[in-house]
Amino acid sequence: MNYDLVVLGGGPGGYKAALLAAKNKLKTAMVEKAELGGTCLNRGCVPTKLFLGSTAALSQLESQKRLRLAKGEAAFDLIRLQARKKSIISASQKSMRAALEKHGVKILTGKGRLSGLKTVRTEKEELSYKYLILATGSRSAFFSGLEPDHQNILTSTDALELTNAPGSLTIVGAGPVGLEIGQIFHRLGTRITLIEALSRIAPMEDEQVSRELSKYLKRESWDIRTGVKVVEFLVKDKQVISRLDSNETVKTDKCLLALGRLPNTEGLNLENEKIQVYGPGWIKTDLNLMASDNIYAIGDVNGRSMYAHSADYQAEYVLEHILGRTDASFDDKPAPSCIYGGMEVFRTGLNQNDLVSMGASCSVSSANLAANPIIQSYGQIQGFIKVFWCNEQVAGITGAGYGLSGLVTLAQVVTDQQWTIKDAKKYIFAHPTLDESLQEALLAPRKNMTTDGSH
Amino acid sequence: MNYDLVVLGGGPGGYKAALLAAKNKLKTAMVEKAELGGTCLNRGCVPTKLFLGSTAALSQLESQKRLRLAKGEAAFDLIRLQARKKSIISASQKSMRAALEKHGVKILTGKGRLSGLKTVRTEKEELSYKYLILATGSRSAFFSGLEPDHQNILTSTDALELTNAPGSLTIVGAGPVGLEIGQIFHRLGTRITLIEALSRIAPMEDEQVSRELSKYLKRESWDIRTGVKVVEFLVKDKQVISRLDSNETVKTDKCLLALGRLPNTEGLNLENEKIQVYGPGWIKTDLNLMASDNIYAIGDVNGRSMYAHSADYQAEYVLEHILGRTDASFDDKPAPSCIYGGMEVFRTGLNQNDLVSMGASCSVSSANLAANPIIQSYGQIQGFIKVFWCNEQVAGITGAGYGLSGLVTLAQVVTDQQWTIKDAKKYIFAHPTLDESLQEALLAPRKNMTTDGSH
Repeated sequence: MNYDLVVLGGGPGGYKAALLAAKNKLKTAMVEKAELGGTCLNRGCVPTKLFLGSTAALSQLESQKRLRLAKGEAAFDLIRLQARKKSIISASQKSMRAALEKHGVKILTGKGRLSGLKTVRTEKEELSYKYLILATGSRSAFFSGLEPDHQNILTSTDALELTNAPGSLTIVGAGPVGLEIGQIFHRLGTRITLIEALSRIAPMEDEQVSRELSKYLKRESWDIRTGVKVVEFLVKDKQVISRLDSNETVKTDKCLLALGRLPNTEGLNLENEKIQVYGPGWIKTDLNLMASDNIYAIGDVNGRSMYAHSADYQAEYVLEHILGRTDASFDDKPAPSCIYGGMEVFRTGLNQNDLVSMGASCSVSSANLAANPIIQSYGQIQGFIKVFWCNEQVAGITGAGYGLSGLVTLAQVVTDQQWTIKDAKKYIFAHPTLDESLQEALLAPRKNMTTDGSH
Repeated sequence: MNYDLVVLGGGPGGYKAALLAAKNKLKTAMVEKAELGGTCLNRGCVPTKLFLGSTAALSQLESQKRLRLAKGEAAFDLIRLQARKKSIISASQKSMRAALEKHGVKILTGKGRLSGLKTVRTEKEELSYKYLILATGSRSAFFSGLEPDHQNILTSTDALELTNAPGSLTIVGAGPVGLEIGQIFHRLGTRITLIEALSRIAPMEDEQVSRELSKYLKRESWDIRTGVKVVEFLVKDKQVISRLDSNETVKTDKCLLALGRLPNTEGLNLENEKIQVYGPGWIKTDLNLMASDNIYAIGDVNGRSMYAHSADYQAEYVLEHILGRTDASFDDKPAPSCIYGGMEVFRTGLNQNDLVSMGASCSVSSANLAANPIIQSYGQIQGFIKVFWCNEQVAGITGAGYGLSGLVTLAQVVTDQQWTIKDAKKYIFAHPTLDESLQEALLAPRKNMTTDGSH
């Protein structure tokens, strides 16, 4: 069959691209090897946020009990939570499928491969295309010798399928995935040990964010070990013994590998279209997100930004480009990001390291959350918001504290619009809101950043 | 003593004005008859949000139990909550006093009166001023014959001092105060009857918001009666019997009068300075918020907008005007507003009624919250966000649903900047967030508004 556009992958990027194409009268086919929705819907953002939001009551109740304001106990039924997850995912998949079919997208199940002749082959079919979008996403990474057995040594996908909270869990890797899944199981009663090879948890975040999160999780009785690597796993009597390069061992019921992501590019036969890859196989894309003639790569698989909303944003751009509505380069600005849980993290724009490398006209202002009435009401007064400035304009914002994922889009707009102090005063920030702490941080005295990153 | 500026009232408006003045080297005195912080800190926003935020865990746990995902019970100790409230208020007052004194503001306790000779008299002192700011705030309103007895028939101030949740409570008046305090006691186990003389609850909000809130509260087993008035209270055997004009009676342990606010202007001797009032005594102000020569009125007492953040915003303007930095009129745009609780309401800019009266180039777009992953995780999928458009630009936004107070500043920026569809597409809205539902509402198909208000 001949198509104007073939999309490989039905995650957030592929879905958005196919739907936009069909709405714009392109004859479009989507090839998906498993389920619509990709990592985000099936084993990423959606299940983690479902479990975190559902169990938020437990975390909040604990805060109030710690203040001796409340008494009581509550517990979750993980089997029912899994059933609810399945029904939510399945409803989303149905509505995605319905939207695609309503606009005439042909959905094929299978694994697509590039033939080199402007065609994609699945097991059963051959599709020729005018344009091709590669949106095949990513999967959990692990090191050789430290593979998951999916019974005791788990990937995030495995962990999100558990119907019993383990008594104890070792998490290897302190990025967003490890931190969020750890908090889910912590709330369900699991004792958590967190192991990070780098010197701090959440290593991609601002250093102060890492410290604040670490303090919070230690107060929650997490055993956190940084700067150490796992060198060996031993499974014995249904327990996992992790041997560290410090010669310590950690013994827990289960272990979760949360070591980042790898691109789904194996077996695509990219070489047939002279598509180049970098690192472990991320697809190289040019200023227009093109990987080769008439071939684009969007989402995780191009290795630029591993968020559903980045894939979505890239899909919008690529369709504009295919439809000839833009010849501008893709605006590869930093995407907003969050880590969810009892203490949340958000980040927009540039960070301290980016700015220090840019020189002396940068500064930082910040506000603690302790006096914010909303923060006080939830009884978790730790945390802060921090604004990075460049040439008297906002260049980036980050923060760690209760409920701060709720500030991310406001912060993104402030960052994108490069607000000045005058802008920060122009708008009425309603009282009482978390938003007021962002305004306080914007209006706080600024300190110059030094080249060693301190201030 | 001679002052550049005398401020009557130490609420949010008076505090901000005095602090700004002192920071700008004006010799400043503040006269406050009771405690710093005014209604907002002592008996308004801060205590209600503290009680709502503290008890949010109960409401969230109920949602999860209703979904059969969780089991358990929790209860709050209202005596301890009151103690926490007192300590939070007292800490705020101390830090307000410290900031004022640090910048040299003279704080006098007493009730100020205008002498007519550019002086303010308290019981003990006489202060002459170059500029005077009236920021005396407001108090609970009630009708004659239906007065509070402060034991069984309560004002909001009384209700927020209770150390025992009553078994049952009749709330007269379904504005923000009644709705928020009702939700606090509902969570603490009180059976709520809500009586509203107008045809719908939250009558200042969009009609669809009123309906959604009403559905929510009825699901929470509130007995809601609209279009009826209380004509008589009888207190008998420690119970309040409210007789309605429909000839029904309602018998509960306590009754809360939440009938709006009255200005604190009695005894100020406003006539001495030829200051005019309107309605029940609100101070008339001109385009520069001036009530008379060199006399400004800000905050609740001028009757323009009854929010702490409006008082704050007016204080900023008045100081700019006094300091000669602006001769522009005060920008009396609608202030953002919220109603907090298990289902929250936010509102920015113009509403449907405002726009319908402006004519045919207005339209409305909206999104339901049901498919938002964050909404789903908290198990309260009801609600919506609605955007009002005028000439292809955002003119106002409102919504009702779980956690929506968190969207108010983003919505305020969108409204103030009069976003177009193009603006709404320009920014990356992180996934998953409540913010995405705002973007969905912005990008949804628009329907013209008809003059009867339907669409």
